Parts: sequence; structure tokens; C-alpha cells
Amino acid sequence: MKYDVIVVGGGPAGVISAVTTRKYYPDKTILMIKNVKNGVVPCGIPYMYSTLKNPEDNATGNMPLEKNNVEFIVDEVVEINKDTKEVKTKEGKSFEYDKLVLAIGGKAIVPPIEGVEKKGVWSIKKDLDYLKKLNEEVQSATDIVVIGGGFIGVEFADELSTMSGKKVTLVEFLPEILSNSFDNEFLQKVHDELSKQGVNIITGQRAMKFNGSESVESVTLSNGSEISCQLVILGIGASPNSNIAKEAGLEIGETKAIVVNEYMKSRSDDNIFAVGDCSQKKDFFTHKRTGVMLASTACAEARIAGANLFSLKVDRVSKGTIATYSTRVGEICIASAGMTEKTANKENFEFVTGVAQATDKHPGKLPNTKTTDVKLIFSKESGVILGGQISGGESVGEMINIIGIAIQKGTTITEFETLQIATHPKLTAAPTMYPIVSAAQNAISKMK
Amino acid sequence: MKYDVIVVGGGPAGVISAVTTRKYYPDKTILMIKNVKNGVVPCGIPYMYSTLKNPEDNATGNMPLEKNNVEFIVDEVVEINKDTKEVKTKEGKSFEYDKLVLAIGGKAIVPPIEGVEKKGVWSIKKDLDYLKKLNEEVQSATDIVVIGGGFIGVEFADELSTMSGKKVTLVEFLPEILSNSFDNEFLQKVHDELSKQGVNIITGQRAMKFNGSESVESVTLSNGSEISCQLVILGIGASPNSNIAKEAGLEIGETKAIVVNEYMKSRSDDNIFAVGDCSQKKDFFTHKRTGVMLASTACAEARIAGANLFSLKVDRVSKGTIATYSTRVGEICIASAGMTEKTANKENFEFVTGVAQATDKHPGKLPNTKTTDVKLIFSKESGVILGGQISGGESVGEMINIIGIAIQKGTTITEFETLQIATHPKLTAAPTMYPIVSAAQNAISKMK
Repeated sequence: MKYDVIVVGGGPAGVISAVTTRKYYPDKTILMIKNVKNGVVPCGIPYMYSTLKNPEDNATGNMPLEKNNVEFIVDEVVEINKDTKEVKTKEGKSFEYDKLVLAIGGKAIVPPIEGVEKKGVWSIKKDLDYLKKLNEEVQSATDIVVIGGGFIGVEFADELSTMSGKKVTLVEFLPEILSNSFDNEFLQKVHDELSKQGVNIITGQRAMKFNGSESVESVTLSNGSEISCQLVILGIGASPNSNIAKEAGLEIGETKAIVVNEYMKSRSDDNIFAVGDCSQKKDFFTHKRTGVMLASTACAEARIAGANLFSLKVDRVSKGTIATYSTRVGEICIASAGMTEKTANKENFEFVTGVAQATDKHPGKLPNTKTTDVKLIFSKESGVILGGQISGGESVGEMINIIGIAIQKGTTITEFETLQIATHPKLTAAPTMYPIVSAAQNAISKMK
Repeated sequence: MKYDVIVVGGGPAGVISAVTTRKYYPDKTILMIKNVKNGVVPCGIPYMYSTLKNPEDNATGNMPLEKNNVEFIVDEVVEINKDTKEVKTKEGKSFEYDKLVLAIGGKAIVPPIEGVEKKGVWSIKKDLDYLKKLNEEVQSATDIVVIGGGFIGVEFADELSTMSGKKVTLVEFLPEILSNSFDNEFLQKVHDELSKQGVNIITGQRAMKFNGSESVESVTLSNGSEISCQLVILGIGASPNSNIAKEAGLEIGETKAIVVNEYMKSRSDDNIFAVGDCSQKKDFFTHKRTGVMLASTACAEARIAGANLFSLKVDRVSKGTIATYSTRVGEICIASAGMTEKTANKENFEFVTGVAQATDKHPGKLPNTKTTDVKLIFSKESGVILGGQISGGESVGEMINIIGIAIQKGTTITEFETLQIATHPKLTAAPTMYPIVSAAQNAISKMK
């Protein structure tokens, strides 16, 4: 069987690749081969246990494929032959392609810790049927240890700690949670909120051993302490899923991801593209390789690949990830885009920071008003925005995208200072106090 | 008495001019002369009757002035002598200046309708003491007519209709409310929401006569119908307050505003600047004169003037207003930036539009999820964004600022298509469905 386009992988990167291909190339035949029957919204996984009524509410379904005339099968590609332009599947099927899009994602890291194979120790897979089983264990467990204080670990800890009768411990080996994405003054707010919700946060410690007979009964940490539990959730990240690409002779980079050019085309083969967690990322500013894995970056890459499959379209290129995140923990919403002060220092940027605080409604005496904190980081010489962090109420979720687009467009501190913004009493800070503008002004005052 | 800088006017434009001057020129003496003792947050005026517990909660106070070492007096400037660089006040005082900033605002339009002088007919003044008196009448009136279906009229109608026992009628002479800022499919949502709240919306009609003996008792419309009322609120806009500038010999433009250059300096005098509602505005795209009056535009201009007072700073210039607004009516939040389809047609732009719809949380089964609608307008030849409209939940208030900064940075449809955005289940649409990106893709599909 031959298809014009074969997309391998049914996550967001795979779906958006297929849908975009359909939009740009209406007459091509497209097959998606996905190895998970019932997919889920990846970022919704932590919220399948209490916030959503039902784990099924996080299912993705096949509607976008059906609507866009994309054929699909549930099977796993086990071999790519780039010379004959063919893929082989686990079930023994074989398909030829003209263009191949690899959207095969990442594999949750399962660390080689003694006892990690015990019952009750779960990694996170983007598979509804698997996660429904995890849900059963979540509902019955009372003592839960979450390993990893990145976004997924923090979000799990938040969700589980709001369920009655749970005792949740969050273990992070770095000195602080969320420290890759936030400076301390911001991540501290999340730390405090989780503590307030009763989460026992242990930082600077590694899990050394999972104890118990058949099922996990406790975790031993690097300081020798032992934490009882019936359930362990491993949220320590993923590594790119590039085995079949490597075996096919595609170039694999130092982060184990498939090496691609800015059009998302693999450097080794003109007919193979790679997008999402399996493809190599570079940082927007440093241009260094980075391990950032984000559904939103994956979707941007998938849109680029879909457009460029059969003919390259100048400007539809990946410029590197700005690593932009948002999350909500209890009553605190927090978000980041681009460089933090910490990463800017580490990468030896010359920079100035500016901070500002304002209410998210105005006047501040309106009901349900929260305080927004903004920190911006600008290149000292050029005045170009390098990054921003925001905490506050729900409006933070879209405010970070103002900074995100500003980064992508190379906005300068002067442009921030003279920015026109829409404000409304019930929806934003006052025009006189708008904190993104005020933070830029604060940075300017430090430049003199 | 001589000051380095005199700022005339104590509204947002005046305050931000003074504060910015202090930041750029720390050693200068600054005097503000303001003719209202107790100012208010202008955009908060419609919410002083029920949403805020107390009209005083919308007072601005003098803290920013005190904190920034800006002297101020309550008095009114009645004469400017640009040759002797002097202003004279109503109370007979005289002050010399080196640089003068006029932030004298606009004057609410009181139309020459028969009976407009009757008790119970109120225009909107940015004066706490005046508005407190209006509040007393609002509380006791049962039948209220709001004249003018722009933002202020719509927001008054929204606020008053949520108060128990009020019967509110909104009269607009154009065929629809909010029609300067929204295309019909968007303004219709506000229309429906106001109707649902019990507001009697009458469009395509003018108020012809206010009837009653001493106090207003009814309004006669152009179709001859008569609406009983004890209170009329005139929300039909303002005209620039430029009389003293005109008498001083400064050039006044066709919109009656003070003519300024891009540094906000009056075209007639190197030592006089004008900002906010009293200064001439041009449209960002057409460069035509426009009557847009917005506190956020005023603040941007004030920051430009403050920086440029004693020496011009390249790039800190006004590029014309993008006319960006947001508001909330009942449960509907709605916002606009730049051109609507209607204005783009009127101004003879070649354009394509794109629309998209998504939930504002993901998956859509999360609690309190609302639907977001986005419409984007792009220049057909260049692909540059011309404008956007959004409706949905509260996140609309900051989403419009993503489009606003995109307009100000000349973002193209390709850049929108490949935009990286932060998404989170509890805060935004899904990365696969983010409606600003999807609307751009929809527009692209129409370009082919």
C-alpha cells in the first residue's frame, strides 16, 4: 500500500502534521500510524483524577483526522527503510510513502532505581487505558510520593493534594521545584501554595530505593529518610523516542533527538521530517541544543512540517524554542517565556531586569481582584526582550503570550515602554499601571 | 513662581506625564495644575453604582504625585502665554514654565436637544464629587435612559440593568451598538446579552426632546415614541478640550484637537506638548486623523512626552492609535484591536479574514469552560495583521493584547501560523486549537 504522506504518531504533533498537510496539499493521500488506541490531551493528564469528573473527559478522539480525510490505523512502526521509502509495523504490515513525518514523541524516563519495577510505581504514558488504571490506584492510595518537581510533578502534587484523605510528598533532587523555568522569587510562590495545600515538599534529595515486597511500601531518599506510600508517580521527564530513526540511519543529536533543519526536515533524508518531542530543539537565543518538550512547540513544528512537506515555504521555519509555559497551582497562576535571570546568567548574557506589580482589575477594590507580578529581562546592549515571568490570577495564562510574541518579534524595551494596550476595569490592570509596561520602565531606570 | 515643567490636567495622561518626566529628569521641578479636586479612574465610572461597593472606591488619589515629588494645586488654567512662557489660572495665579504639558482632556458632548438642561439629564464628568451626586439619582431612579451605544453607554446599561428594580433603555442612533469597534457577528453577542439582562435597546433612533417640567420625565425619539424616565445619562462621547490652546495661538486640527508631532510636541511651539484626549490622534494604518479617546492611548502618549520633554529620544514616538478596547457585559467579554472588517472595507484595504473557535480551557470538559471566538484581518498583499476581534470569557482581556502587540510589531500571517504559545488546561485553549493561530490558518486557506 502506498501513501503520499505517512505520519507516525498520534499525539498533538502527529495530528497537527496530518491536518496541516491536508490544508496545504488537499489532494495527497495521508495515513497516520499511531501506537496508542485512545490518546489523551497530554497537558490534561494531571487533571484526570479529580478536576475532570472522569478520565475519559481527557480523551482526544479521532475527529480531527476524520474531518480532514486522514486515514489511520493503530499499530506501531518498527522499521523505516529510507531507500525503498517504506515502513514496517509490529503487526507485519508494510506501507510505502513519498513523505514521512515522524512524530513519535518521547519516552517517559524510568530511572534505574532499585525497586522501580514494583507494583505501585508508575511513569506517565499518554495512553487513556493505561491512565485509567493509574486512576484506580490514585483513588485508593492514601500516601502518594511524586518524584520530580518539574511541571508534571508539581501539577500532579497540586491535583492529588486537593483530593480528600491523600498525603502527598513531592521529591525534587535540585534545590528547588520548577527551577528550570522560574527564578526563585516566582517559584517560591508555587512552593508556598503547595505547602499550604499540605504537600510535603522535599528538595535537594533523590529517590534511592523503592521498598516493599511485591508492591511499593516506601521510598528511601538520599538523606536516608524513608517515606511510606502505596503509590509512586515518576514525573522526571522524557527522552526523545528516536530508536527506529537511528536504526534507519537518520542522524541523531546529542540530546538523542532526530536532527532536523529549520523546515523540520531530517538532516539525513529529504523525504523524512521529524516534529515534536522526537525532533531536535534549539534554544531561541543561544541556538544551543535543548531538551525542552512542549505540546505547544510540537504543534508549531507540526504546522511548519505540514506546510513544507512537498515544497519549501520560506519563512515557515522553526526559529528555536522560547520555552514558554504556564500553570496553575491552587490559587496561584504562574508563567514563563524565554530566559530567566538564572539562565541568562548561566549563558553569560548581559542583561537588565525590571519588575512591576499591579492588580488584575482596576480600581483594585473591584471584587475578586488579585495581584499580578511581572519580571522582564532585556538584553543590556540592544534593549531586546530576553524573557519574562508572571504570577497572579488566571489572566497570567494569556499575558505570558504577550511576552511570548514580543520575544518572537524581537521587541525592544522602548517598544514596551510606548506599547498601546487594551485595558478594562473588570479584565486588566489600569492603563497607568499596566505591569508589562511598568516592568519595562523599571528596567529602563536601571539602564541609566 | 517658575517651574521647569508644568503639567495641566490631573487625569491619567497628566499623571503619567508628570511621573515619566520625574523618571527621565530627576532634578527638574514639576507642578501639576488640575481642575478637579477628586479625580476618578475614568474607565471605572460605569462601575461606581453597584459593582463597586462605594463610589469612593473609584477615586484615584494623589499618591503617584506625592511619591514622585510632583507639586500640585487644584485650580484651572485659563490662559497660556507662549511668548512669556506663562500660564494664568482662574484664581488669578500665574506660573512660568520651561516646558508645558497640556493634558486637559475632553469635554463630554452635551447635544443641543430641547430640554437637555432639565434636572435628571446627566453627562459624564471625571469628577468624584459630581459622580457621587449622580449616584444618588441612580439609586433612586427606576426608569433610566442611556443615550449612546458606544462603550460608555453600553457599560452603564450593563451596570444599571444588574441593579434590582431598574428599567433601562439604551438609545443609539446608528443601526447597532458598538459598531465603531466591532463587526456585527461580535457586537450582536453584546446586544443579546444586554437584552437578556432586560435592557430595552433601541437602535437607529435619536433622542429629539427631553420632556418634563423642572425634571426630566420622558424622552421623545425620532420615531415619535416616548420613553418615561426619571434619569437620562448622556454617553455620546467627548470632544477635545482645546480652547485655551487655541486662544494661545497653538494650531488646532480638524478634530478640534491640538496638533502634535510624533514626539507629542505641539506643532506650533517647541516648549509645549499635548497628550491624551486633547491632542490630535492619527490612525495606525491609514494615518488619518481620528477621534479615538482612550486612557491607554493617553498613557502611551504621556510616556512619550515625559521622555522627550527636554531632549528628543528617537524611537520613543507615537505611531498612531491602534484603537484597542475590551469590555465585559454580563457574562460576555469582548475586545477589539486595529481594523474591523467594516473599517477595512470603508478605508479600501485589500484583506482576508480568518475565524476560529475554541474553548478557553482544555479539555473542554473542565469546569467553567467558555467558548472563545477570534476573527483576524490580514492585508492581502503583505500578509500583515490589520486587526482582530475576540469574544469569550475573561481571558479575552489579555488575549487582545497579543493581537495588539502583533499589530504594533507588523506581524505577518506566516508568523501567526508558526507562533509559539504557552498553553495550560486550566488557563488557555489547547495548543492544537489555539484560536489566534487557527484563525490565521483559516485566513491562509482563503488566500489560495
